[in-house]
Amino acid sequence: MFLDKLSRKFSKVQNHLCLGLDPDIEKLPQNITPSLVGIEEFLERSIKASSGFCLAYKPNIAFFEALGIEGLRLLEKVIKWIPDDTPIIIDAKRGDVSHTSKQIARYIFDYFGADATTLHPYMGKDSLIPFFKYKHAYNFVLALTSNPSANDFETKKMATGFTLYESVIQSVLEWKKTYPNIGVVVGGTNMTLLSKIRQIDPCLLFLIPGIGAQGGNYQQNLELGKNNQQEVLINVGRSILYCDNTKNFDKEIKKSIVKLTQNNFNL
Amino acid sequence: MFLDKLSRKFSKVQNHLCLGLDPDIEKLPQNITPSLVGIEEFLERSIKASSGFCLAYKPNIAFFEALGIEGLRLLEKVIKWIPDDTPIIIDAKRGDVSHTSKQIARYIFDYFGADATTLHPYMGKDSLIPFFKYKHAYNFVLALTSNPSANDFETKKMATGFTLYESVIQSVLEWKKTYPNIGVVVGGTNMTLLSKIRQIDPCLLFLIPGIGAQGGNYQQNLELGKNNQQEVLINVGRSILYCDNTKNFDKEIKKSIVKLTQNNFNL
Repeated sequence: MFLDKLSRKFSKVQNHLCLGLDPDIEKLPQNITPSLVGIEEFLERSIKASSGFCLAYKPNIAFFEALGIEGLRLLEKVIKWIPDDTPIIIDAKRGDVSHTSKQIARYIFDYFGADATTLHPYMGKDSLIPFFKYKHAYNFVLALTSNPSANDFETKKMATGFTLYESVIQSVLEWKKTYPNIGVVVGGTNMTLLSKIRQIDPCLLFLIPGIGAQGGNYQQNLELGKNNQQEVLINVGRSILYCDNTKNFDKEIKKSIVKLTQNNFNL
Repeated sequence: MFLDKLSRKFSKVQNHLCLGLDPDIEKLPQNITPSLVGIEEFLERSIKASSGFCLAYKPNIAFFEALGIEGLRLLEKVIKWIPDDTPIIIDAKRGDVSHTSKQIARYIFDYFGADATTLHPYMGKDSLIPFFKYKHAYNFVLALTSNPSANDFETKKMATGFTLYESVIQSVLEWKKTYPNIGVVVGGTNMTLLSKIRQIDPCLLFLIPGIGAQGGNYQQNLELGKNNQQEVLINVGRSILYCDNTKNFDKEIKKSIVKLTQNNFNL
């Protein structure tokens, strides 16, 4: 069960950091060859250095896909490098008619063996149920995202007076009565909205992206985003992964995590 | 350019049929081994038999993903088997923050070389622009889908009095002023709504799924869905692809297309 795994890992690391893995050939440290082999070395060392210090990993499947099928082979390796005690959220942002969603869920949960994923709510409940049916896994439904165009639809008011993202959250809370394995994605760049969303339901688990490169602050998001079980996943990607350009990038990644989370680890 | 390719192919086939390719190991004809090799034979023969008779193909990437990385290798082969004159829409239903969408667009348009794809509007314009920037390619944004839970959000009224899917279409029309390569997905199961949506804009190109197995009718959707250039893509998947269980399934697929589209081909 995802939440049990999360809780056990939390007891070890005592922080809420989810490390986003977005391999980008253009951002590799200087001494790493800008190639698939280089990315492989970079990710293996980054995971080795960080796995004892972060709560979870969120590989962004799009960055592996952009490298073609060999990139997806690399994602398989990444999943093997991540220790078994550490939850893996494959960030895939999917959702389709139910017989198609069933196939996507097989890919994410059976083939790759992810512990959790991210989903688009647009097509509604029946497009997401095939994911919810994986009881051991967890599903983060997009509510309010961290990009500027979240204002195109997500923050627009419905006839009910609620915004679209509030309607999505209300639906998620309804769906959770049957499928408890649902949380939401809430962007970490607007603290006023985050506080407001936190008040909708005290239990709901948030996955919060948008920290670091996109401008969000770790500690603020932690305080405002955690649920009544003190659970929250604060995703930080580029600002940690590409924090250093030297051959010692892996040590710097570790230091960067410890500094950010203010954990008192012996480095 | 996708529209030019579509127009040239239309002049050859004189129908609007987009054949959905959803390889399902459980639905293969009797004499085909239920294995990846069997699926490969099935798809190769299906494409060979149908390519002179349909306007476009829509491989559903999820059904290839469910077969793992070898399934994606099969998708590469499928794309090679489809003649160069025939548009390929990779049905992927994606959308993410812009730097991630850029990676997905690379995968779909550069790596696989698709002519078009399908997109989730939930995250708004900046999540879709990386796709729109591929000027030669085309993008079908989800508006009203054919699944029952389209009523969860898509058909809900906004404060403006318009439904969410109408708001999406209005935004698409706005975005089209800068990026002309955008159409919409409109489900083919509700003819009243289809007629209503057709009236919003006379030019907008529709990709219409939900025909056959999901209950929609080809001729009705063609009449009600075509734009003022007489263009529309009517997607039919399972009801043609798995229309026959014998060793002559490929001939039956061809007959089934001709019967459905009422074309007067010499078979």
